[in-house]
Amino acid sequence: MNFMAILHNVTSAGRWMGKLGRGDDLLESISLICRDNNIRLGRVEAIGAVEKAVLGYYHQQNRAYEFFSLDTPHEITSLMGNISLRDGEPMVHAHVMLSDEKGMVHGGHLAPGTIVFACELIIEAFDGPELNRGMDKETGLPLWNM
Amino acid sequence: MNFMAILHNVTSAGRWMGKLGRGDDLLESISLICRDNNIRLGRVEAIGAVEKAVLGYYHQQNRAYEFFSLDTPHEITSLMGNISLRDGEPMVHAHVMLSDEKGMVHGGHLAPGTIVFACELIIEAFDGPELNRGMDKETGLPLWNM
Amino acid sequence: MNFMAILHNVTSAGRWMGKLGRGDDLLESISLICRDNNIRLGRVEAIGAVEKAVLGYYHQQNRAYEFFSLDTPHEITSLMGNISLRDGEPMVHAHVMLSDEKGMVHGGHLAPGTIVFACELIIEAFDGPELNRGMDKETGLPLWNM
Repeated sequence: MNFMAILHNVTSAGRWMGKLGRGDDLLESISLICRDNNIRLGRVEAIGAVEKAVLGYYHQQNRAYEFFSLDTPHEITSLMGNISLRDGEPMVHAHVMLSDEKGMVHGGHLAPGTIVFACELIIEAFDGPELNRGMDKETGLPLWNM
Repeated sequence: MNFMAILHNVTSAGRWMGKLGRGDDLLESISLICRDNNIRLGRVEAIGAVEKAVLGYYHQQNRAYEFFSLDTPHEITSLMGNISLRDGEPMVHAHVMLSDEKGMVHGGHLAPGTIVFACELIIEAFDGPELNRGMDKETGLPLWNM
Repeated sequence: MNFMAILHNVTSAGRWMGKLGRGDDLLESISLICRDNNIRLGRVEAIGAVEKAVLGYYHQQNRAYEFFSLDTPHEITSLMGNISLRDGEPMVHAHVMLSDEKGMVHGGHLAPGTIVFACELIIEAFDGPELNRGMDKETGLPLWNM
């Protein structure tokens, strides 16, 4: 079996719990929180609702993200993400799922342009070896150099 | 950019891992666990299956929750939630996603009436400033007074 | 109200953060990580993308899993799971959701045959009473003997 996992041991370095405000950009706000609090490694989770959203899908064959918009209000049924470094700055990589009034769910890679209606989030910072993103030849994605 | 995040520092105050029983009400059971263990701040996650479900969608323009039912068995593909206070008592706010036999996913705000078939959950309690829910004029939702 | 929750107190015993490689089997790789690091109790979460997937749905009336395949690339919009023991060995129980180029989401019980394109994961190990899976008569599932 193919098995190329690479993992680091990390330790907990602090937790934050709170909310974003209506009109905040979901991705950019979490990024700002990380920069303001010097969170360079960690995890984030959130539930809430958005007024509209921009999500991405990575086209594995074309090696390019395709983005699409949801222009109506949705629940954030989950936001799951991690925090690491790109070009020396904290970068948030998050995937989200959003549900409509019939419960139908759309999801993808969280992009700027996703606007918060209400959002409750939990962030945990880790201490450990830095994880820096760099171009991965195998996938075309900015993965961790480990 | 709009940026109205408000966060508290919290610390870990205990973890629980276990299961619910067949026939338990998913939301009410997690709430009872929190009351029984005096968990007033924290996070919860779960996977499992339900016999049926009641989920909500917040209609942002009408400022009212609309609820809908799924009357057939589904997998719980994720439950993500937080624990805080409302009227001085622990309150669980959770969003769930549920999949059917074709893998189709429905999701929304977890409401009473969602009945467990099997459920494995992890709860983490936090120490930190109390988060109390009160009516938020901007959204009509019971958000945290921070 | 029916209320049959059984929970154990657990404590944090280590965290790992890292990635899987392209071509890795998603479920089997996480299982191997747990065995290699002697993680016998814990939680796992991940985001990323898969080349193809095999997911399951438990048919509650027939008491059997039904499996189905997604033969095209998808984002991993969430993987949420737990780690416990079966026959004395670490066993990963995870549910995943996967989104396509239109953002449509499919989900279910993660099965072998789900092949990683890229995957970023976080594992937390717990110390606490062992949780061993054994056949549960009520559901037909290998649930925790507690």
